[in-house]
Formats: sequence, C-alpha cells, structure tokens
Amino acid sequence: MQNNYSSSTICAIATAPGIGAIAVIRLSGEDAITICNKVFFGKDLTQVESHTAHFGTLRNGDKIVDEVLVTVFKGKKSFTGENSVEISTHGSPYIQQQVLQLLLKNGAKPAGPGEFTLRAFLNGKMDLSQAEAVADVIAANSETSHELAMNQMRGGFSSEIQKLREELIHFASLIELELDFGEEDVEFADRDDLKELVLKLNKALTLLINSFDYGNVIKTGVPVAIVGEPNVGKSTLLNALLNEERAIVSDIAGTTRDTIEDEVVINGISYRFIDTAGIRETVDEIESLGIKKSFEKIDQASIVLLLVDASSISIEQLTSDVKNIKDRIEGKNKRLIVVANKIDKSSLVEIELKFKDVENVIFTSAKENQNIEQIKEQLYDYVKNGLLENTDTVVTNARHFEALSSANESLLKVLEGLDVNITGDFLAMDIRQALHQLSLITGDISTDDLLDNIFTKFCIGK
Amino acid sequence: MQNNYSSSTICAIATAPGIGAIAVIRLSGEDAITICNKVFFGKDLTQVESHTAHFGTLRNGDKIVDEVLVTVFKGKKSFTGENSVEISTHGSPYIQQQVLQLLLKNGAKPAGPGEFTLRAFLNGKMDLSQAEAVADVIAANSETSHELAMNQMRGGFSSEIQKLREELIHFASLIELELDFGEEDVEFADRDDLKELVLKLNKALTLLINSFDYGNVIKTGVPVAIVGEPNVGKSTLLNALLNEERAIVSDIAGTTRDTIEDEVVINGISYRFIDTAGIRETVDEIESLGIKKSFEKIDQASIVLLLVDASSISIEQLTSDVKNIKDRIEGKNKRLIVVANKIDKSSLVEIELKFKDVENVIFTSAKENQNIEQIKEQLYDYVKNGLLENTDTVVTNARHFEALSSANESLLKVLEGLDVNITGDFLAMDIRQALHQLSLITGDISTDDLLDNIFTKFCIGK
Repeated sequence: MQNNYSSSTICAIATAPGIGAIAVIRLSGEDAITICNKVFFGKDLTQVESHTAHFGTLRNGDKIVDEVLVTVFKGKKSFTGENSVEISTHGSPYIQQQVLQLLLKNGAKPAGPGEFTLRAFLNGKMDLSQAEAVADVIAANSETSHELAMNQMRGGFSSEIQKLREELIHFASLIELELDFGEEDVEFADRDDLKELVLKLNKALTLLINSFDYGNVIKTGVPVAIVGEPNVGKSTLLNALLNEERAIVSDIAGTTRDTIEDEVVINGISYRFIDTAGIRETVDEIESLGIKKSFEKIDQASIVLLLVDASSISIEQLTSDVKNIKDRIEGKNKRLIVVANKIDKSSLVEIELKFKDVENVIFTSAKENQNIEQIKEQLYDYVKNGLLENTDTVVTNARHFEALSSANESLLKVLEGLDVNITGDFLAMDIRQALHQLSLITGDISTDDLLDNIFTKFCIGK
Repeated sequence: MQNNYSSSTICAIATAPGIGAIAVIRLSGEDAITICNKVFFGKDLTQVESHTAHFGTLRNGDKIVDEVLVTVFKGKKSFTGENSVEISTHGSPYIQQQVLQLLLKNGAKPAGPGEFTLRAFLNGKMDLSQAEAVADVIAANSETSHELAMNQMRGGFSSEIQKLREELIHFASLIELELDFGEEDVEFADRDDLKELVLKLNKALTLLINSFDYGNVIKTGVPVAIVGEPNVGKSTLLNALLNEERAIVSDIAGTTRDTIEDEVVINGISYRFIDTAGIRETVDEIESLGIKKSFEKIDQASIVLLLVDASSISIEQLTSDVKNIKDRIEGKNKRLIVVANKIDKSSLVEIELKFKDVENVIFTSAKENQNIEQIKEQLYDYVKNGLLENTDTVVTNARHFEALSSANESLLKVLEGLDVNITGDFLAMDIRQALHQLSLITGDISTDDLLDNIFTKFCIGK
C-alpha cells in the first residue's frame, strides 16, 4: 500500500499521564532495539530473544536516568508488526520525560496520535475497522460498549463484511469478464443468482445499518430527557436514579473509576441524562416552563421521562402533556415513559384512576426512593427490546455507518438495474461502487486523508 | 525476619490513574503465576521461562475482558523476589477495573501502599534505605532530587553506613568479650584505637548529618521568601523569575509535565517561593506592612529576597530593613539577597551611591526583565557554595537524619566515657545504642510499626 507515513522509529509514553508506580514508554520501528540498546546497560538487547524482559539501567552519558525493565519484541510478532521495545520505568513524570528525551536524542521520533496502531494496520496486523476499535476499547466505559468494541477489535464486524465483499467480488469479476467480450452479448453472471446475492447482501447490510442506532447509543450512552413542570421533583428523581450508581464506586484502595456526571449504567448499558444542569437549577423556579418549551431536549433524547406531580396534576393537563410529547416523537425511534411522582402525597386509588388512560406509566415517590427500580427496568427495556434487533454484529462507528449506507444505496441501484435489464457496464459500475465502500471499512482501500482522519483521534502512545 | 505481613498474592494497578494507551497491573506472591494462569488464555503460564512476555486474552468465564500482554517473573529474579506477573492491558479505566476485579475474584488480595517494595525489602532484594528511596525516585521532580534519590536507591548511602557500622561492631564485640571476663580487668579493645575509630565515625556521621540541610532542600525545594513594602514590584519580580521556566515546558505532543506553581528549577535544583498568594494579592495594597511583619515568612525561608524600590527608598529605611532581616537570620544557614528594583526609574549612579554600603545587592528592573538572571545565579550559588559540603553522599530522609543524629549522640557519649576511663559495660551500652540507630537505617533491625510508617507513604502498585 502507498502511504506517506515514514518508516522512522517512533516513541511515546504509553501509560496515563501523571505519577504512578511505573510508566511504560514504547518504541517501534526498524531501529527500536538498536536505539534502546545505545542507552541501556545490563545486556546486549540486539542479541536477546523476542518477547523477553531485561533489567538494567538507562544512561545518558555517565548519568543513570533510571533502573528499568525493557521488553523486546522482534519484527512481525510485535503489536505493530515491526521491532518494538517497551521500557518500564519508575512512574515519575520527571523520569518519563527524561527517558523520552533520551530516546529522541538517540534517533527516535515522537509518535503521533494512534501511530502505533496505524503501523499495526499498515503492517497487516489488523484491518482498519479492527484498528479503529482499539480506540473504542480504550474509551469504553460500560460493559456493553466494552464488549462491542472488543468484538470489533477481534474482527467480528469486519469478518462479516469481508465475507459479503468476497461474494460480490465474484460476481463483479464475472460481469467485468462479460464486458471484455464486448459486442458478443454473453452473460457469464447469471442475473437471477446475482439478484439473489444482492438481496442477501442488502438484507445483511440493512441489519448492520440498523444496528448503528443501538451501537451508537451503546458507545455514547442512551440520551434520556427528564421533562416536567417546575417542582414536580425532577431534581429528586435524577438524584434517586444516579445515587445508587454512585455508591457502587469501588472501595478498593487506590483504584480509580472515572465517573461521568449524570450518567447511570444499567445492566452494562450507559444512560446519559441530558441538560441536567437545567434541572438542578430549576428546583426553586416558580415560572411554568410548559412541555413545549422542552421540545428541543426531547428531540435530542431517545427516551423521554415525563415527570408529573401525580397528586396535583389535572387530567386535562396530563392528557395535553402526553399528547404533545407523543406528537413530537411520532414515527421516531423514541420512547415516552410517564412517571407519576409524589404518590406519597395522595391516595393511590385516586391517582391510579387519574392515570388509567395513560400508557407506560410508573407510579413513584422519588423522595421516598419508591419504584425507582421500575424506571430503570423501563430504561433497559427500551434498549433491549426497542433497539436491539436480531443481530450479533453491531456497528458503532459513524464512518462504517456511512460506508455501509453508501454501499447499500449502490446495491439498490444494482437491483433497480437488474429489474430493467440494464447493460453489464452500468451494473459493473454500481457493483464497483458498493465494493469500494465496503473496502473503505476494512481498509483494503485507504487513503492518507482517511488514515489521518481516523488516527488523529487516538491518544498518543497507542 | 519476623513480621506480620502475609505471604498472600497481592495485585494492584501500577500505572498512573486515568486513560492511557496501556495500563499495567501487577501481581506478586507465591500464587501470582497460577492465579493469572486461571484467567489467561493463549499459553500455559506455569510452563514458561522467567522474564518472558506472552500475548493472549484474559477471560471472565466465557467473556473476553481484554487482549493483554503478560510478562512472567519467577521467584528470586523478580523485583519483589517472589513470583510476579505484569499484565499490560488496554488503558481504559473500565478495563483496568475489570482486570483487577477478575484477579481479586481468583484469589489475589489488593496490595497496600508500597507493598511490592516492602516485599522486595523483606525478601532481601534491597535494604530499607534503598526501599525508601524508591518512593523518592518516583516523587523526584528535578534533576538533582532525582539524582540523589537514584543514588540512594542504588545503595550509595547505605553502603557507607554499612561500612561504618561493621567497624563499630568489631569494637563492640571486643568490649563485650571483656565483659565476659568479668573481674579480670582485661582490655581486648585498645582504648586509643577505639577513640580513633569513634572520632572517624563521628566525623563521617557529622558530614552526613550536615548534608541533610542540603538533601532536604533538594528534595522539597529551597524555600525562598520575597519580602518588601507594597508596590516595590514583588509580583512582577515573581513573574519574571517564574516565566522563563514556564516557557520551557516541553512542546512534544502528548508529553506531560507536572508544573508546580511558584516553583523555579535552576541548574536542576528546585526553588519554592513561599506565601506567594500574599504577594499576588498585595499588588494594589497601599497599607505598609513593614519588614517586621514578614518575619514569619523569613523564618520559613532559606533565602530571603529583600525587594526595594531603588528609585524612592530612603537610606534610613534601607539600612533599617537590611539590619532587621540580618538580625533575624543571624547564625542561621540563611542568605539575604537585596534586590534594588526599578532602576529604570532613576539615575543608576545615584542608586548605586545609595546602596554602596549594602552587601549582596542586585540592581534590577523586574518590569524590563533586567538582571533577573543575576538573581538566579545568586539563588543557585546559595545551594552550591552555601549548603553543599564536601560529601558525595547526601541524606534526604528525615528518618535517616534522626537515626544518624541519635547514633552520633551515642558516639559522643562513648568519647566522653573514654576521656574519663568509664568501665566497659557503660561503653558497650552506648556503642550498642549507636549500632541500633545505624541498623534502623538499613533495616537490619526493623519493626512492623517502622515498616508500616515507611511504606504507607508509598503509592499503591509500587
């Protein structure tokens, strides 16, 4: 493959910034081992086996920079597919800097974002969609997002694409062959078989394309809007939903967990409550906002929690609020959950009567932490039964979604063409277009622009 | 050695908290390899050579937690001196947590602060002063503090103590032997030779004890006070001193450098400006504070920068300010540097005349960034020529300082005893006391309390 990425030896700090017990600095490139060997004392690294670790000192002239453990990886067997060294140093930022400077001084170049993974791709250690998943694996912060990213990194997604693509290539080559025969009006590619394959492809791609909604919310969290009049208990409900989660934070000394504000994880799926700053500030607000004022928020959400004061709301108001939201989300893959709050302040019989015509209602007392679990079940149910279609493979990446959608459009053109007995050259053009789009996913076709765009989103050192 | 530390297998995240390209989780203990092997798929880790790295997956039941690189260290050859495993995972906090939980579930215990290094000490891989230096190496943030800590970790300091201690043990045993002979009034230990050794020891310990002032400021930074009337330019001077340093911050993408506010590093030595919040806030203050009000600050500092407005200060005020500070720091190892600021606002001849009787004066214009370099030279000179005595070995640890001082006191008692021909049993007691104190440094004698006290200051994972 042609590319403008140099074959120089790169280095970067690969562990998180800051003070730790240890830090790891990575080198990759043809000269990785010889560069490290220039400053490492304890053993001749050029003579050691691949995948072996060696204790010694790093020196800058006479000065000992650190006592380190160096692990050497040779050629094809490394993560990047080229000579690599991992230097495990004491975890002070001062030492990390000194070691990095020392390596740069001795001929290494600072790595760009994702450059190690880019090299792994360029050296054929993984395809492009797998490489992209590496960044997703690192960014994953819930069980399900981690699982999807891990699955993609291990090739689950691209192997499916690869299979479909090969079948299509078979037909493409037959049709191209027809074109070679020019005027002779032969048909090597059976049009019925082709149509059958294209329909099969179209079905598979459609499943993958549809999985993106799911994949996307898994990756970024399901956006949830809590809407309602002031003083119905939005802030209390939000806290009730969040609190339990907060308490789970591991109590093992020294372990950290990045908690994202206003996010709750239910059965491994993350839900983001949007515009909660507003909620937190409006507790004491007396001015009525009205549901229509919340439309913008509703448009951003996948799930709308309409929170009402069950003890005081009028049936007219309730009917109107529910209708307004339903009209707004009509035909979109969104769900409305009505939460009738403050059931502790009135008779339950009376309340249930008031809500008898409302679908999907949960009676709660956020203050008393009552029935909050039912809301969580509904949140989970939306993803489980509302989003997740019958597919094992889920698309999480917007770039893949675009490519799959474009490929599918080309396939639909092929189908149209087949229906009107279009000539082989037009068919071939549309098939080529579909193949091109599919290749972009796996990286069988890639451009420097595309690679730049993908890998600059990575962190340094990966 | 007796101790109440269990021999269980411990584990901890060893790299800095947060997101990185990779993270390292450490296991140490008899079952380290078998515990990891239970959840690692790719190779049988119990069958591999020490110091080898292996790629595979970590699994929790059927679920793949991560693709990892596992490095195995067997027995005595590891950092801790016991079976160890380092697991290099993808650097997401989610995965780090999952892997840690998985190891705990399979029989590992969470490591306490410094527990890996503690085990290295208990297993005889390093003495106590070396173990303590590990934490200093990690905390070091300037060239000199790093160098001192590295030197101590590599045994430079304790080997000197060890040598002195052995000579003293020799005499102690001779004197104990005398005691065995009870009434017979023999002298195996030549009193003149003993006196010579004790004097030699006393001299060496005094050098080490005196090096603590230097060691301490190197470790924690030299405290510098800027004092002066309002509006003489304290804030401007502080910025001028700090700014240059700030600009040095590495511009290599992705590298981080923890900058400590109001700290400047000159020739690898760090200087801390104390109570600078006050300075920053007092720019517009019109009320005169007077030098005497700064006495508290002066008492905390090793270097006092008296900043005056050279263009407007009266000779009387100048003389009085300088005298007040000199009286205050008299007999202490502190230095006064007079900074005659605002030289741009008056004739230099006139100013120099005004300051002709003041020692150690630097003429500056902080605003114009003039002669700031001279102040830095003076700051460095204080450490280089004022603090650093002729010793290669520097004590940086307060605990060592205490032990050395106590040992030296006992030695002085031995000397006094020799002068008045004290009996062998009293001599032996004081020598034993000195030996005990020296043993505490190297850990030849240690108690659980002492170890607890030392290692709880470490970070987890080291």
